[in-house]
Amino acid sequence: MRHDHAQWGSADQIGAANLLTTEKRLAALQSVRQGRIFDVSHEIYMGAPYMAPNQTPYLMSIFGSWRHTIARRRKMGATNDAGTNLERIEMTTHVGTHIDALGHFSKGDMLYNGNKAADVVTDWGLDRLGIEHAPPMITRGVLFDVAGATGAAHMQPGQTVTVEHLQRAAEAGGFAVEPGDIALIRTGWGRYFGTDNARYVEGEPGIDVPAAKWLIEQGIVAIGADNMAVEVLPNPNRSIMMPVHQFALAECGVYLIENLALEDVAAERIHTACFILLATKLRGATGAPVRPIMMT
Amino acid sequence: MRHDHAQWGSADQIGAANLLTTEKRLAALQSVRQGRIFDVSHEIYMGAPYMAPNQTPYLMSIFGSWRHTIARRRKMGATNDAGTNLERIEMTTHVGTHIDALGHFSKGDMLYNGNKAADVVTDWGLDRLGIEHAPPMITRGVLFDVAGATGAAHMQPGQTVTVEHLQRAAEAGGFAVEPGDIALIRTGWGRYFGTDNARYVEGEPGIDVPAAKWLIEQGIVAIGADNMAVEVLPNPNRSIMMPVHQFALAECGVYLIENLALEDVAAERIHTACFILLATKLRGATGAPVRPIMMT
Amino acid sequence: MRHDHAQWGSADQIGAANLLTTEKRLAALQSVRQGRIFDVSHEIYMGAPYMAPNQTPYLMSIFGSWRHTIARRRKMGATNDAGTNLERIEMTTHVGTHIDALGHFSKGDMLYNGNKAADVVTDWGLDRLGIEHAPPMITRGVLFDVAGATGAAHMQPGQTVTVEHLQRAAEAGGFAVEPGDIALIRTGWGRYFGTDNARYVEGEPGIDVPAAKWLIEQGIVAIGADNMAVEVLPNPNRSIMMPVHQFALAECGVYLIENLALEDVAAERIHTACFILLATKLRGATGAPVRPIMMT
Amino acid sequence: MRHDHAQWGSADQIGAANLLTTEKRLAALQSVRQGRIFDVSHEIYMGAPYMAPNQTPYLMSIFGSWRHTIARRRKMGATNDAGTNLERIEMTTHVGTHIDALGHFSKGDMLYNGNKAADVVTDWGLDRLGIEHAPPMITRGVLFDVAGATGAAHMQPGQTVTVEHLQRAAEAGGFAVEPGDIALIRTGWGRYFGTDNARYVEGEPGIDVPAAKWLIEQGIVAIGADNMAVEVLPNPNRSIMMPVHQFALAECGVYLIENLALEDVAAERIHTACFILLATKLRGATGAPVRPIMMT
Repeated sequence: MRHDHAQWGSADQIGAANLLTTEKRLAALQSVRQGRIFDVSHEIYMGAPYMAPNQTPYLMSIFGSWRHTIARRRKMGATNDAGTNLERIEMTTHVGTHIDALGHFSKGDMLYNGNKAADVVTDWGLDRLGIEHAPPMITRGVLFDVAGATGAAHMQPGQTVTVEHLQRAAEAGGFAVEPGDIALIRTGWGRYFGTDNARYVEGEPGIDVPAAKWLIEQGIVAIGADNMAVEVLPNPNRSIMMPVHQFALAECGVYLIENLALEDVAAERIHTACFILLATKLRGATGAPVRPIMMT
Repeated sequence: MRHDHAQWGSADQIGAANLLTTEKRLAALQSVRQGRIFDVSHEIYMGAPYMAPNQTPYLMSIFGSWRHTIARRRKMGATNDAGTNLERIEMTTHVGTHIDALGHFSKGDMLYNGNKAADVVTDWGLDRLGIEHAPPMITRGVLFDVAGATGAAHMQPGQTVTVEHLQRAAEAGGFAVEPGDIALIRTGWGRYFGTDNARYVEGEPGIDVPAAKWLIEQGIVAIGADNMAVEVLPNPNRSIMMPVHQFALAECGVYLIENLALEDVAAERIHTACFILLATKLRGATGAPVRPIMMT
Repeated sequence: MRHDHAQWGSADQIGAANLLTTEKRLAALQSVRQGRIFDVSHEIYMGAPYMAPNQTPYLMSIFGSWRHTIARRRKMGATNDAGTNLERIEMTTHVGTHIDALGHFSKGDMLYNGNKAADVVTDWGLDRLGIEHAPPMITRGVLFDVAGATGAAHMQPGQTVTVEHLQRAAEAGGFAVEPGDIALIRTGWGRYFGTDNARYVEGEPGIDVPAAKWLIEQGIVAIGADNMAVEVLPNPNRSIMMPVHQFALAECGVYLIENLALEDVAAERIHTACFILLATKLRGATGAPVRPIMMT
Repeated sequence: MRHDHAQWGSADQIGAANLLTTEKRLAALQSVRQGRIFDVSHEIYMGAPYMAPNQTPYLMSIFGSWRHTIARRRKMGATNDAGTNLERIEMTTHVGTHIDALGHFSKGDMLYNGNKAADVVTDWGLDRLGIEHAPPMITRGVLFDVAGATGAAHMQPGQTVTVEHLQRAAEAGGFAVEPGDIALIRTGWGRYFGTDNARYVEGEPGIDVPAAKWLIEQGIVAIGADNMAVEVLPNPNRSIMMPVHQFALAECGVYLIENLALEDVAAERIHTACFILLATKLRGATGAPVRPIMMT
């Protein structure tokens, strides 16, 4: 599989989502036997972890409440005391469990598929490559339980998930990657999401570029992990920052899914399952908070 | 089917989502033959319609951009020019295609299932009945193409979708409602979403309480429509405001799904299909913008 | 008086505020005889006028309220029931009565005093020329009651306030501009602020570049008006947009003060008075909402 | 001086600002001899200290920038390349140097002057007692350099500024409080604003209720300090929280001014001076970020 930008045509905005074929989708749906749902997302709340300074805090407060909406409606002549509760949220889309849009990262001044950042990135979001282009993802998810394979409760910040780790985890899981799959990598680090946020974002175990390359060469649509950035942080080479984001998003058109909650599926030893992720179509956004599930 | 609050127990927070049985889910998945996906949501963007004053505008702007993140990372010693694009969003959850949480509406000082609004509604959201409690919805969706059945391109603001309208549309669609279904009502009004927002929110065709009651008595989990409020606006009885919201959410524990995009499925004469909606778990939120799909 | 950027040195960031000498300040203070204060600002509120799309709505809601803060403090052991009320605001600084920072406008890629916009304008505000550099302004304010001099209640949108208008108003007011003064121009248009916002922002009477030049050549520090943009909108030459902003801010380093409330001072026939404006030091901001006063 | 709510009438919304007489104002202005301005406010910026959870972070990013506004205007036919830079801010009003509105704190369900919190505090701010009611404050400021009088660089968190401290500082400063004055208390703690924010908000030296009472009995309009809360934190009596806020705002109608920058005036041994504070009229807000000055 080639990874040059031209493989899906110069107009392409969905990248590896081109591998989400109808056959793949039907096979994933037909693999569901029990109808069990595993929720692989965390709740989003004030205090959810974020990596400053680019990521920013999530804030929510009630904007209209039952008390005052009832009072306002009474003044307008209403007699049925319908009270509305409705909030105002301030957030980045990279909060909680979320998916990155292909336009989230650049390599210098270039985005995925030859798009110039100067043309695409406007004050008000992405004119191309925004998350609204990410199609519904219904395919096979494959869980690389790397932490489980190493026997540790979790890997360590700065510890790289290598190709070998992935190969061993696939073997332990009894699966081989196939085109159109979505890779879910369990480092065990997710246990600190919401329980020790300072620790969670200070660094993390994660993949390096060779591991991303190995996955992508096999036709992976998206790489998810139970950490904030999928990739190892800090990068062992301190003069390189966020290379997996660059490689996956900007070079290969492969999506990243972050802050997954993978403890339950790992505990049940589920290694392949129907994976569904439906990204809200926030036009021009660089990602979307999501609620992916796995089904068996 | 009884609709009193006690039917699913005094601790229940999910209401009619209790009807989403494993059998129902498996049947819906197994009904998918072609693997076709119909996207029944609109994009969310600055300028999306909202009903002031409770609903508020959606704002998005780039918070961190490739130019400045590259510059910052260079100063930190990075040589690979990874540029991040990342936005800040200010919004209500009731923007675009969205689902209402059960705690979104009160009847006086009472929320669904005997919850007192004074206890549940805090400054920072709902302590109970927030959208994080809404489970993944994978079930049969049934399309009541009311506009199609009437022969008009769309119904009129203030025009009520009655029980008779629904019955006729079901008959035309060749289906009967079954417990655990999700009802999707097409009034044709959705054509003004994003094309004439002022008109879209000034009023709308929609159901009345008897129509909601008829659906709910048959075991509907959620009622969706191609308008802002599901229900007819303004209410023909001007002294009653938002009675369907009160009835469905606060009395019956039945969800509402708003601003659906139903033109495509209607054009293809799809009346029953696998419906999937995965609400992002925004803790304590009164709703969530979503990307529901239908599959055949 | 020359207006080239070099007049106050290449490091200068305050522009015409250099004309705010100690002598000027003392004279203004000593001119106060009665101790009367005239409030020349409007209140800022949800619904305040704004010019889309660059200007954006002002939103405010209570974030923490007495009810819930008392409850939280009780849980922490407090017995004195101290309730806090505290809001969250989302806004642009160009809301209500406000002052523009010198970095608010560019002429192509250049800002005031030879600053390159590409260097100064970051994702998070202005690295130079932000409103925090605007010193306290305590000087003589001179009111050009142009509407009063014409005899009309207000001038019309698209109607230019010319040099002749200003000259006639100064004559009627019995004053001559002196270096270090702040000019306040009454078009009468302010009567629609908050009373007919749609009309208020659709267009406005205001000055043209020759009028700005005439004021600036006499040593004006800032030009304020009872409209949204100081300058005539739409510009009679439709291929030129916002030329007074460019000229005053980017070329001359002269501040603009917008949405002033000048009806009261005009009604009292006050033409010169001590003017005080203290811009909140929002670092890197392109302006600040303010509460200027005049004193006699 | 009595402190019961009735002293300025049952309709009063400005409290001790009633003491800001014309005579007081003229005397303050006439005290200015040199025309020197001392800026006693800090800059407001992302990262400014805040006391979670009620206080919330300040966020600012450019919403419209020169590059894209020029591009948009070119499309509309403009040839003069006017570029706008304009931000979006999310904030509480209690950021940086700010003044508290009288409605900021309650004593149980009561606000200042017999106002019931349930009536006054709405979803969208204060219907009464909001900061828009605070008149321009131009009066004598008196600096209690408590840290200077103790000889320490700064007092310690949890250390109370007592009546005796204030008396000694007034004596050292050579002044006696007079009705209509504004008290400025220097604890030295302000040195940590922006230099060690974690330390700055973890606790602070400040006044207790007897010290507030002593000041208020002498006719103080407002009490300011170089810390986040004016009052000592944590309160030595852990079962009492924020009693000075309750007493000053809710009981006495006396304003609080927080996060003042008092090092410069103290270094210059300025103990009495003309103090000017002009709170932006944010309707219904519980405070306002400000830029107070002192003049000699």
